Amino acid sequence: MANILILGAGRSATSLISYLLKECENNNWKLRVGDYDADLAVAKTRGHACAEGFAFDIQKSLQREEEIEKADLVISMLPAKFHPVVARECLKYGVSMMTASYISDEMRTFDEEAKRKGILFLNECGLDPGIDHMSAMKVIDQIRDSGNELRAFESFTGGLLAEDPEDDNPWQYKFTWNPRNVVLAGQGIVKFIQEGMYKYIPYQKLFRRIEMIHIPGYGYFEGYANRDSLKYLDVYGLRGIDTIYRGTLRRPGFCRTWDIFVQLGATDDTYEMENVDKMTHRDFINSFLSYNPTDSVELKLAHYLNLERDGAEMHCLQWSGFFERDLVGLDSGTPAQILEHILKKKWSLHPDDRDMIVMWHKFEYMQDGMDHEIHSTMVAVGDDSENTAMSKTVGLPLAIAAKHYLMGNMDISGVHVPIRREIYTPILEELKTLGIELTEKKVK
Amino acid sequence: MANILILGAGRSATSLISYLLKECENNNWKLRVGDYDADLAVAKTRGHACAEGFAFDIQKSLQREEEIEKADLVISMLPAKFHPVVARECLKYGVSMMTASYISDEMRTFDEEAKRKGILFLNECGLDPGIDHMSAMKVIDQIRDSGNELRAFESFTGGLLAEDPEDDNPWQYKFTWNPRNVVLAGQGIVKFIQEGMYKYIPYQKLFRRIEMIHIPGYGYFEGYANRDSLKYLDVYGLRGIDTIYRGTLRRPGFCRTWDIFVQLGATDDTYEMENVDKMTHRDFINSFLSYNPTDSVELKLAHYLNLERDGAEMHCLQWSGFFERDLVGLDSGTPAQILEHILKKKWSLHPDDRDMIVMWHKFEYMQDGMDHEIHSTMVAVGDDSENTAMSKTVGLPLAIAAKHYLMGNMDISGVHVPIRREIYTPILEELKTLGIELTEKKVK
Repeated sequence: MANILILGAGRSATSLISYLLKECENNNWKLRVGDYDADLAVAKTRGHACAEGFAFDIQKSLQREEEIEKADLVISMLPAKFHPVVARECLKYGVSMMTASYISDEMRTFDEEAKRKGILFLNECGLDPGIDHMSAMKVIDQIRDSGNELRAFESFTGGLLAEDPEDDNPWQYKFTWNPRNVVLAGQGIVKFIQEGMYKYIPYQKLFRRIEMIHIPGYGYFEGYANRDSLKYLDVYGLRGIDTIYRGTLRRPGFCRTWDIFVQLGATDDTYEMENVDKMTHRDFINSFLSYNPTDSVELKLAHYLNLERDGAEMHCLQWSGFFERDLVGLDSGTPAQILEHILKKKWSLHPDDRDMIVMWHKFEYMQDGMDHEIHSTMVAVGDDSENTAMSKTVGLPLAIAAKHYLMGNMDISGVHVPIRREIYTPILEELKTLGIELTEKKVK
Repeated sequence: MANILILGAGRSATSLISYLLKECENNNWKLRVGDYDADLAVAKTRGHACAEGFAFDIQKSLQREEEIEKADLVISMLPAKFHPVVARECLKYGVSMMTASYISDEMRTFDEEAKRKGILFLNECGLDPGIDHMSAMKVIDQIRDSGNELRAFESFTGGLLAEDPEDDNPWQYKFTWNPRNVVLAGQGIVKFIQEGMYKYIPYQKLFRRIEMIHIPGYGYFEGYANRDSLKYLDVYGLRGIDTIYRGTLRRPGFCRTWDIFVQLGATDDTYEMENVDKMTHRDFINSFLSYNPTDSVELKLAHYLNLERDGAEMHCLQWSGFFERDLVGLDSGTPAQILEHILKKKWSLHPDDRDMIVMWHKFEYMQDGMDHEIHSTMVAVGDDSENTAMSKTVGLPLAIAAKHYLMGNMDISGVHVPIRREIYTPILEELKTLGIELTEKKVK
């Protein structure tokens, strides 16, 4: 009888918990779900006899030790900064651990000790990072198995809203995951390789350097580059490749509009603004524009950033209420915090909103001196604002990995990401049966 | 007989040392000049009997202690990060100290102990910070003395090149002070108050939000905003003022061209570029542009940043060699380091180049219900690349302060900047006799 401990029961843990509730019943396992909010943890266990929800505070060392000691596997859905705290207890008590977060440098240092103790720390096993690794490595391994050479790899993922003709939201976007991460996305330098040349895009140009991607059946999306594509050279074993580029998908027009906030400096998270308690939405925008006793905020903004006064971008800002004289409703904050707060007023999911995940890879390779190209595509749509596509695609890979690990089908120790066949094959195969599937198509 | 110790004998110390050599002869004082480069220190003392130049390494604690212990006053021209190291020894041995650098938070913590020991730590006593404080406070104090209220204060300084019709340098600019600081200038957020409203400019817009300033006799200059004007509210006692704005002056057209580097990301100092050892000037620019197998770097750049293909901005880059296939000549580096290295090839002063300092303040105040306005202007031109206006305007305020302090005319202890009348009055008066003078003009 195995004991599973899930830490964190927020939105992205819904599908993870649902899946494991069933598996616990089938296999006579026990599931404990801890969250800062006990009610949330209890609600998500839905009265199953095999499961218990309880109040959990990662900062309380005694509770942390007790819970982890009695578990066989810990799945941490806590904010990424807490993973090393969990990992250190896991090392102490010889307990394996899984996360959907990027491996931190600190996590990497645990590899040797985890190996010595025969436990597995599986990271980056959600959507992005997660399904992106697994689905990409599957095709890369196929190309290599055939003795061919990968020449170019591009990969894009987006967490979006499903199309809804009834909805007047001109952004066709809402917060479907951590709003703060959406607001700060893209800060820092972007690096990639194109046709053998190292390329760099600074934040101030990121949302203007987009690529158009067509997804059959779903139309066009625009992609902007993710931070450091170069680190995937080693993760995927792609040193010497001509092109490597990873990016984020948005619906057409989004990036040009988001760039307004970037150019204004409204996504800056490095300083506190003055007089926030008295600030209106309109004041917020005006604080980034030059002073003029008579010109309107709207015209100043349109002129400053070369926007059409009544164009699509200005309409998005208007729809979001940025020109209103409503109080922001915070006592203090950085520009990024204030921007997030204003956006949340219109960008929070309604109960019947359905989110949508789009993932797209492009592989170019040489075979018998000829260029070939494979596209790999996944589209997942949520049921409603609770059972989101985000929750399924983040939680189910973890849940499946947990099942296979506890059943003894994953005999690996140390710190890992799911790029090895023995990890990704069973996960991708079972995801397919759950309707989450990448379709590969040879286009050349 | 007083002993003066000058640490650092670089370009900005030339006028400081020359002035104090004379004063030491007049007053039978001793001057010791220490520099990492002993030859430089010896050369700058020019064989005067009262002075000695010697090799000095701030990292060597024994030498540091010995030298500071036997001094009555230390003038630190070292990089600002070393000032607290010097200050701690000064506290230990009860020695006063002067710098031309901004007060650091650490320096501020020494105030109480310096007061207890009756020693003076005078900071920000160069040009900017330095003469700007003194000349501004003089007018602000005059306005207050007359019982009037300052409504707006703007202040701009620029370290530039004197006009030279023989010179084909289209930038009309070279490095006349620390090149690294020029390349990184403006990074971080800019804050100021305009007509009672807090305003913020992010780096990516800074060089496009310029003001045109006319200096009678010298024509127009453009000014861009300095970092945090708000901190001057407390330094100058201006809480409640409608407008406060501090900026940097450049010749017209400079900012638009410099903005090319900002938009490209070429001033980024946060990451190391790849393959720097094989990189040409042209590669450097191209690494920030999108890939294309046939389009030229020139056309890609002009199109990306909406520049005229043969316009003034493109010409500046061409003159600086940015489109050449010359090797950069570094083994590694951040974009900012590489940019600085390329710029230095054409922006280093020739022996007969003359630099020019321009300072301009605007004061608006109410008197009897009427608006009044005073402009205060200084232009200083260097003799050659050794005796620069920068060296005079940075070094002479310090030198004069040192003389007055040692003569017993400056009876203050603790950590200070030169905003008190008893400090600024004698310095400004003597600077005037040396040809460094702010001319005040009531324009309204």
